[in-house]
Amino acid sequence: MKILAILYNGFKAAEEEPRLLGTVENKLGLGPWLDSMGHTFIVGDLFSFKEGADSDFQKHIVDAEVLITTPFHPGYLTRELFEKAKNLKLCVTAGVGSDHIDLNAAVDHKVQVLEVSGSNVVSVAEHVVMSILLLVRNFVPAHEMIERGDWQVSDITRNSFDLENKVVGTIGAGRIGYRVLQRLLPFDCKELLYYDYAPLPEAAAKAVKARRVQDLKEFVSQCDVVTVNCPLHEGTRGLINRELLKHFKKGAWLVNTARGAICDKDAVAEALASGQLSGYAGDVWNVQPAPKDHVWRTMKNPLKGGNGMVPHYSGSTLDAQARYANGVKSILENYMAGSPQDPQNIIVGLGKYETKAYGQR
Amino acid sequence: MKILAILYNGFKAAEEEPRLLGTVENKLGLGPWLDSMGHTFIVGDLFSFKEGADSDFQKHIVDAEVLITTPFHPGYLTRELFEKAKNLKLCVTAGVGSDHIDLNAAVDHKVQVLEVSGSNVVSVAEHVVMSILLLVRNFVPAHEMIERGDWQVSDITRNSFDLENKVVGTIGAGRIGYRVLQRLLPFDCKELLYYDYAPLPEAAAKAVKARRVQDLKEFVSQCDVVTVNCPLHEGTRGLINRELLKHFKKGAWLVNTARGAICDKDAVAEALASGQLSGYAGDVWNVQPAPKDHVWRTMKNPLKGGNGMVPHYSGSTLDAQARYANGVKSILENYMAGSPQDPQNIIVGLGKYETKAYGQR
Repeated sequence: MKILAILYNGFKAAEEEPRLLGTVENKLGLGPWLDSMGHTFIVGDLFSFKEGADSDFQKHIVDAEVLITTPFHPGYLTRELFEKAKNLKLCVTAGVGSDHIDLNAAVDHKVQVLEVSGSNVVSVAEHVVMSILLLVRNFVPAHEMIERGDWQVSDITRNSFDLENKVVGTIGAGRIGYRVLQRLLPFDCKELLYYDYAPLPEAAAKAVKARRVQDLKEFVSQCDVVTVNCPLHEGTRGLINRELLKHFKKGAWLVNTARGAICDKDAVAEALASGQLSGYAGDVWNVQPAPKDHVWRTMKNPLKGGNGMVPHYSGSTLDAQARYANGVKSILENYMAGSPQDPQNIIVGLGKYETKAYGQR
Repeated sequence: MKILAILYNGFKAAEEEPRLLGTVENKLGLGPWLDSMGHTFIVGDLFSFKEGADSDFQKHIVDAEVLITTPFHPGYLTRELFEKAKNLKLCVTAGVGSDHIDLNAAVDHKVQVLEVSGSNVVSVAEHVVMSILLLVRNFVPAHEMIERGDWQVSDITRNSFDLENKVVGTIGAGRIGYRVLQRLLPFDCKELLYYDYAPLPEAAAKAVKARRVQDLKEFVSQCDVVTVNCPLHEGTRGLINRELLKHFKKGAWLVNTARGAICDKDAVAEALASGQLSGYAGDVWNVQPAPKDHVWRTMKNPLKGGNGMVPHYSGSTLDAQARYANGVKSILENYMAGSPQDPQNIIVGLGKYETKAYGQR
């Protein structure tokens, strides 16, 4: 069996830190195990494997049976590549979020798509709460002030608030969004809101005291903080655009650790520059790695703060890497043994969607 | 009645943002009210009022009846100044933390010391949780990487962890420390610990699932994260020193939003540089404003991260300023009317300590 994994280079960091499992160097910790069974395990770095006429990705995909990718430096699996991947049976996402795979094409080609669904939901939820706090409390300009040798407290406090008594809403109250609500509960927010295609079970909503708002414009107009925790699909691409941003509360904060393309890049940058948004934070970008001149790298609000961007890593802490490496191994074990997969990991089964999360046809 | 307030200059920020109440310009919002009653209300900025032979502080303290100070840019009220302040009856701290006042001297001179005890406990607790998350998750180097145009995820993730399943302990489980524990509860830490001179009431400890550890060395040796939430007094000055840091877990994170002098400045910087600490964050400094070359401004761990320092503002968000301005007004109203003060605000009553928090004689 030929297994192809597209990971990312960790270079010196991966040599020094064996817990960096998600790197080309450390191969999700699967190398010895797969080798011992006589499988062909090809691990490539992002760049030599990236899409393009003559890339290694295109070369090896034609006869690989299993493709392993990560959402962090995704190998984009298009319909065109599916046509060439005559032997492909299984795509495994080492992490959560399979939008880099053309899922409709996977359905048509009877290629299963699985992810390690529980592997990083806590990691991302923690990152969301951190990002909300650091925007609302105006952390980044305060830290920069210290580092450059200044001390002018009023320049920081003039745009620093408590999370207490603010209205926070999540777009998406699934595995991550719900965990965000759980973590926000003791902060005594004025209200916790959610927007989702389905209501939470009553007990779950009650447990986090969350109220559903069914109209998106109405939802954002009530929130001091909006956090995006839904998958990227045809129905959510560009969801937060110029038009919707007009309905946000003036000076709201927006956190997106879901997928960059859910937000219109330029509309967000303009809203921040004008003060319509007070802050934007997250770790996802419409292209990854983000180009050096991506506007989200350095955009600011009128008070020169409000940017909490980082590279895509919230779901890839060392704790999460251990979980998703183990999860990939379990998926491979089940696949090889012909055993059933954990249902919550299945995005696309044999010829059909198994989840509603990706806005299937 | 002559009332002297030592606040800090907000300059342009204070002109543009009237909610910056804690500034010289906006006078805690008390100007019109005190003027209307015919009181002499003198408000000075930090620098012209700071201690020194001929400062305005020294000039006006000799006949002021009430002194209002903030913990953010404290006017240090020494025993020597108490000797000169023949008319002084009441010191009010606009905020929480009265260690800039020689409390033993206040007892001896029968000067009452009050603070607005509830005014910023939530603000500080939020700052603590934010600081823990951003250290554990390695936020600052990640944000800096984005801002300078780079993208090398493994350099970030190699030192990024989840808060879940870590042991977090607070030194001090009072108004702030307990709120920190409440907010940490849904993060599913491995364990929440506290160290305090008194045990929490059983129900309170149970509600946050916190276990008391009575020996400080034993306490720190069990913690992945230590947060300091106790007042500064003779018993806590330099509490976290070279000797105690040796007992920390290798690579622990330390957050201090209490008072800078509770930690030995150089010992902390050395522990961070050696990797004994993975991170240090907080907003308090042994001298405020911190000198331009203060080592805490730029100290780093061996992986060039782990610094989450900001100027002293965690308890001074715009929400907190509204609360402590209101609180100062209430204290003045009670004082003028001869009504009893809210007991939880009284640090030093007439000739005696009213709280155990400051390690009184």
